[in-house]
Amino acid sequence: MSSTATASNTTAPTQFLQVKGHSFAYRRFGHGSGLPLLFLQHFTGTLDNWDPAVTDPFASAREVILFDNAGVGRSSGEVPATVAAMARHPMAFLEGLGIETCDVVGYSLGGMVALQMVQDRPSVFRRMILVGTAPRGGEDIMHLEKPNLAKRIQDPTNRGYDVLKKIFFTSSAASQGAGEAFIRRLSQREDDLEPPAGPNVAGAQIAAFREWEEFKGQRFAELRAIRHPTLVVNGVHDEMIPVSNSYRLSENLANAVLLTYPDAGHGSVFQYPESFTRQATAFLSADSASAAF
Amino acid sequence: MSSTATASNTTAPTQFLQVKGHSFAYRRFGHGSGLPLLFLQHFTGTLDNWDPAVTDPFASAREVILFDNAGVGRSSGEVPATVAAMARHPMAFLEGLGIETCDVVGYSLGGMVALQMVQDRPSVFRRMILVGTAPRGGEDIMHLEKPNLAKRIQDPTNRGYDVLKKIFFTSSAASQGAGEAFIRRLSQREDDLEPPAGPNVAGAQIAAFREWEEFKGQRFAELRAIRHPTLVVNGVHDEMIPVSNSYRLSENLANAVLLTYPDAGHGSVFQYPESFTRQATAFLSADSASAAF
Repeated sequence: MSSTATASNTTAPTQFLQVKGHSFAYRRFGHGSGLPLLFLQHFTGTLDNWDPAVTDPFASAREVILFDNAGVGRSSGEVPATVAAMARHPMAFLEGLGIETCDVVGYSLGGMVALQMVQDRPSVFRRMILVGTAPRGGEDIMHLEKPNLAKRIQDPTNRGYDVLKKIFFTSSAASQGAGEAFIRRLSQREDDLEPPAGPNVAGAQIAAFREWEEFKGQRFAELRAIRHPTLVVNGVHDEMIPVSNSYRLSENLANAVLLTYPDAGHGSVFQYPESFTRQATAFLSADSASAAF
Repeated sequence: MSSTATASNTTAPTQFLQVKGHSFAYRRFGHGSGLPLLFLQHFTGTLDNWDPAVTDPFASAREVILFDNAGVGRSSGEVPATVAAMARHPMAFLEGLGIETCDVVGYSLGGMVALQMVQDRPSVFRRMILVGTAPRGGEDIMHLEKPNLAKRIQDPTNRGYDVLKKIFFTSSAASQGAGEAFIRRLSQREDDLEPPAGPNVAGAQIAAFREWEEFKGQRFAELRAIRHPTLVVNGVHDEMIPVSNSYRLSENLANAVLLTYPDAGHGSVFQYPESFTRQATAFLSADSASAAF
């Protein structure tokens, strides 16, 4: 199947691609002359966790492809316990779609998967957007047991998407207001929904974070070989994957622009979707060898 | 005198404003509905050190005002040995021009002066752009005695503007090429030039950097009271004022977006003038309470 008639994650039907013994759930919408833009999702997130305000504006100039990795949502199989193994599935998925090169938005865990993919096969991406993520050997990656995070995650009054408002946004009135708007946007999709991730997904993904914190040899050395124009984005008050990880990315990647947002946490791009999509669209539209845009 | 007919720092005549016993050298060009944009200059820099590729694009939508602080270029008086004292001169200058509120580009030392000004009188600025600078209590600010900087500054084969190519840009071919283009642009101005700064200017400004590194009480606490939308810009490989200072600014200012450039040093905005002026123009054009643009 090719792109669908609707160009929003609120309405795009979920599709399934059979490849290498897997059935991968995905959504694909939009059209234009740009390369397809692959979205790789965060911890326990499914297709339904992509904010239409973040995905849809890209769809006017390119195909947007949202992807559930193995074992997530309605994608078959088990969630791998390493980022290296997770990276093989979107690679097979892109091969199955016949896409040799695309652009990518890798968010949180998805950014780590994107970094692993581009190391494994540099030609898979032209330009990369890495949001709220960390390089291998990064620090304080998704330690949900930290008291400040644990109390918000375990608060029984936070149900469903409400917990995202508490952990993706800061405590300011402006950020919490943006969080409410974010949840309203996610809730607009009412049919053809993904099952929420269960403890098996969370457990394997947490194991992958722990393994990703380890490094051998010179820390961050592998980043210097990645010359792809890259836009690194983070909220300055991210408690889940601290902004210092984005600093290390932009300092060590050969060709990266860093953009940080004020009064924002892990969900910075959901807090400022208009700014993010405007900046990212300008970045993707550039054809310079430099990431500067 | 009001704005001149030419809208370029290559051709704008130097003007002089007499105020509070001083004669301040400045250039003023451009027009439009935007607030005037005041440029505050770096260590030992004069009006002639403003790259027309960085100043001129702003002039199509607002007045650009370039300013020599006391004792610099043809401005009268002595260079103060503290940032606090330096901040009083542009404040008097703006009063003399009848400007109550403007926007500002503060570069390096000029960024420190801008921070001091906005603390002293918050209404003086609407939006701030802080390039390659540091908060009070910042680290490793302009230690020109560091071997890596000292050898380039003292190299007798670097004459005139050539030293800027060595200390404002990285050693990569792309960055050095941008440095050569920068020097060509500065050299386009042939008449009505400022005298280069001498050792007295450098000595007092270095003393001001040393005093600015000191802090009392909670480090960076004064930044949290500054709620002005602020755009912080730096090259990731700045050896004169390391990018960590820009991290501390964007983390502690209440309302700041950070933008860093790859393969760039202290002169990042001279390396990427098209990107910088595009980004800064979008930032200045925004009328949101948030710095996000």
